[in-house]
Amino acid sequence: MERGDRVFDYIFNPRAVAIIGASPSDQATRAQMKTKIRERLYLVNPKYTEVLGKKCYPSILDVEAEIDYVIIGISASLLPQVLEQCIRKGVKVAQIFTAGFSETGIPERVKQEEELKKVAKGRIRLIGPNCFGVYCPKTGLSIIPESPTEEGHIGVVAQSGSFAESFSYFADTKNLRFSKVISYGNAADLDGADFLEYLADDADTKLIAFYIEGTKNASHLSAALTRAARQKPVIAIKGGMTAQGMRAAASHTAALAGSPDIWRAFFKQCGAMQVENFDEMVNTLIAFDTSPLPSGRAMALITNSGGFSVIQTDMCLKAGIEVPRFSPETIEALRALVPAAGTSIGNPLDAWPIYYNVGPTGNIADIIRIVAADRQIHSLVFQFDQVRYLRRILGQGLDAHMKRLIELMVEGCEQARQKEHKPVMITVSLDPYLEDEEDRYYNLLLKRTFVARGFPVYATLDATVKATANLCRYYESRNRS
Amino acid sequence: MERGDRVFDYIFNPRAVAIIGASPSDQATRAQMKTKIRERLYLVNPKYTEVLGKKCYPSILDVEAEIDYVIIGISASLLPQVLEQCIRKGVKVAQIFTAGFSETGIPERVKQEEELKKVAKGRIRLIGPNCFGVYCPKTGLSIIPESPTEEGHIGVVAQSGSFAESFSYFADTKNLRFSKVISYGNAADLDGADFLEYLADDADTKLIAFYIEGTKNASHLSAALTRAARQKPVIAIKGGMTAQGMRAAASHTAALAGSPDIWRAFFKQCGAMQVENFDEMVNTLIAFDTSPLPSGRAMALITNSGGFSVIQTDMCLKAGIEVPRFSPETIEALRALVPAAGTSIGNPLDAWPIYYNVGPTGNIADIIRIVAADRQIHSLVFQFDQVRYLRRILGQGLDAHMKRLIELMVEGCEQARQKEHKPVMITVSLDPYLEDEEDRYYNLLLKRTFVARGFPVYATLDATVKATANLCRYYESRNRS
Repeated sequence: MERGDRVFDYIFNPRAVAIIGASPSDQATRAQMKTKIRERLYLVNPKYTEVLGKKCYPSILDVEAEIDYVIIGISASLLPQVLEQCIRKGVKVAQIFTAGFSETGIPERVKQEEELKKVAKGRIRLIGPNCFGVYCPKTGLSIIPESPTEEGHIGVVAQSGSFAESFSYFADTKNLRFSKVISYGNAADLDGADFLEYLADDADTKLIAFYIEGTKNASHLSAALTRAARQKPVIAIKGGMTAQGMRAAASHTAALAGSPDIWRAFFKQCGAMQVENFDEMVNTLIAFDTSPLPSGRAMALITNSGGFSVIQTDMCLKAGIEVPRFSPETIEALRALVPAAGTSIGNPLDAWPIYYNVGPTGNIADIIRIVAADRQIHSLVFQFDQVRYLRRILGQGLDAHMKRLIELMVEGCEQARQKEHKPVMITVSLDPYLEDEEDRYYNLLLKRTFVARGFPVYATLDATVKATANLCRYYESRNRS
Repeated sequence: MERGDRVFDYIFNPRAVAIIGASPSDQATRAQMKTKIRERLYLVNPKYTEVLGKKCYPSILDVEAEIDYVIIGISASLLPQVLEQCIRKGVKVAQIFTAGFSETGIPERVKQEEELKKVAKGRIRLIGPNCFGVYCPKTGLSIIPESPTEEGHIGVVAQSGSFAESFSYFADTKNLRFSKVISYGNAADLDGADFLEYLADDADTKLIAFYIEGTKNASHLSAALTRAARQKPVIAIKGGMTAQGMRAAASHTAALAGSPDIWRAFFKQCGAMQVENFDEMVNTLIAFDTSPLPSGRAMALITNSGGFSVIQTDMCLKAGIEVPRFSPETIEALRALVPAAGTSIGNPLDAWPIYYNVGPTGNIADIIRIVAADRQIHSLVFQFDQVRYLRRILGQGLDAHMKRLIELMVEGCEQARQKEHKPVMITVSLDPYLEDEEDRYYNLLLKRTFVARGFPVYATLDATVKATANLCRYYESRNRS
């Protein structure tokens, strides 16, 4: 039985790992077989002698190597017996994938979980039950076959398995890379607070995402969250913020949920930044992972189509972002480059004719530089949604034009970021159902180009603005304390 | 000069149409050449003798036919002279695409617009300047080359050209079909109110989308909007709802914007339903165009992944949608079909194991029917986001499984809609930047299948819930008055 920080060595750097209930279709088996943990992996299942080309043992007791960590995905009735075997084998930590315990609310199953805890107490540490376990690209543990093998700086502690799973699945799409992801489920033993404490001091983790439905030890959570938030940004979601949501939470991880107001105050006291849903969480993580903090709430918006820039300004204001007038110098410099008809020289800047110019001067890169240099501006949002307009005018010339235009847009944003040290946030508008593959192609190409240069990129302006507003919130809270 | 309703005959059913300033790259030229108006179309531009295979005349005065409607896209300085020619020719209505007038705020250009009005007054009716004009699939006028030729029931009156353009561009993607779309720009003559009055009585128009930045005649607008809203749903957006937004509006169409509160009260008094942005407008139009009204705010949510259903319940509550418990009979019927482990039998229903069953009984169609039959439920949201999970388990078997599963999901929703007469709203979750083409393929296939059967389909649950909440708002406001 391991106490203190050493337990985390067994989790995040195990000498060897076993999967009990391994099978060719098992998600955990297929996920581990795709990473370097494969070399330190032992498969256990009496039904197989081999799984995915790897030897399979009838029991954990038949494995020769010393096993620090096991992943258990067998039916609930077999669990106590298998857990005893693990203890006998000297396993330090067991992650229990198996669901159907206290989260069902069925008294008999709540009792089963209590029995598991009794078996484990003082003899083996548990993660779960009802959880997806751990993803740690540095050493190789993985949650799903799609988890990227590259390391990153985001740590995730999630009571919900699907929350942790979604991060892994959308890692490439969203350009998210992780240090450690932990899905801890019903928290029969190790709790969210334990993992928060660990990530607070983990040098590989630079910001933390935390999803919680409820806790059985609020004072521990308070201490852990405060400690973590003092050292790095902690973005938190409380599932079940409303009465009916709390009911759903109770049936999901059997946690006591508490009132929304209490949780809101609790997060604030601890210094964690609360967000509303998974999308806002992801968008905020992208912003913190790639962008400097803005020193104020004044944003410049380079967009297109006047009609929308009006609504867009409203959207910014509602999110707590100011869209102030540009300085007279900025206006003058812009007027020299942008034709007046059909455009608005101001903030938002509706400078669509500029997208037809890919020449050496008076192009979009110049526009971005001029706007970013405005002293009254703290951050810049650049929105692109021009493919269809350009195609109508350029026809066959679209491809060459788009490729040069993409270079200019990225060049302008890079120069603005380097020279002004202000956040430069990117919106590449893309409708999910769009089946115009040419339009989609250039948008994805632009998105990938911006991502490769380390910019935060979003598919909607709304997402961009809310993520920027969260950077502002964090800057302000840090400067207050 | 035409007064009264006859002017709309000239616009929506012109004997012949001319484009002054026609060219092979001109958007208006290319748009009209793609529709049946082509046969009644005359191109005018002294620079060409032929455009896109059609004869081109040096002047409108050289055209033999009687022209009711002209589209003018020439530079501002030439406009007064060309307008005089149109009047001489007996043209009834001129749509002026040309921008760079009062919307620029430049005194000289404001004056130019006043001069245009003087030339036209009592002699020819104007739409614009600074507008995209009219799209009417029934007779053939079109705004952009991508506008569908099929007719629909949605009428659009928009002060902003890009607003009208976006409707046309996303028509296929969003499954929107229109009766008439009008972009009226600076409203030098014909105003939004004029077009609202016309659409109020137009039998082809069953609901109206209205985008306004400001008006020069509030009492006329009030009367027109009230009249329209009495006869059909009117979904309205006020651009420039905040101080800075209003500044942007002033530079966009030179309209006096008024305070946000005034506009909110104004829309309410008139019976129009105000929405916040273009996406909410589109999503609400889809709902009204395809769905019956729910008789209350209690929604059933069939979803997957417990972690998200907690946050999703919160999201519903915030949007004003209730997610009540199911009746004991519903719960009992569901328990008989859905395995307990890892799922939540309740509302939201997290019934993921059911997606692995495409057999004749106990499948997703049964689940949807049971939930829809619950008497305490007024509407049903069915969310699908399962491709990646199914693929992990099924591997090569995914294609056959998905095709049968899609049949079952659509069958269940169709039966629920037919039998219960409740709105059945669909979420097919799809991330815009997802480059997993297999995942995207099945999601788009499901989306298209649902759309073909007349269901409202959305890419996010948030959009689905807000659209449903707007159906509820309309139902309640109609039952109050």
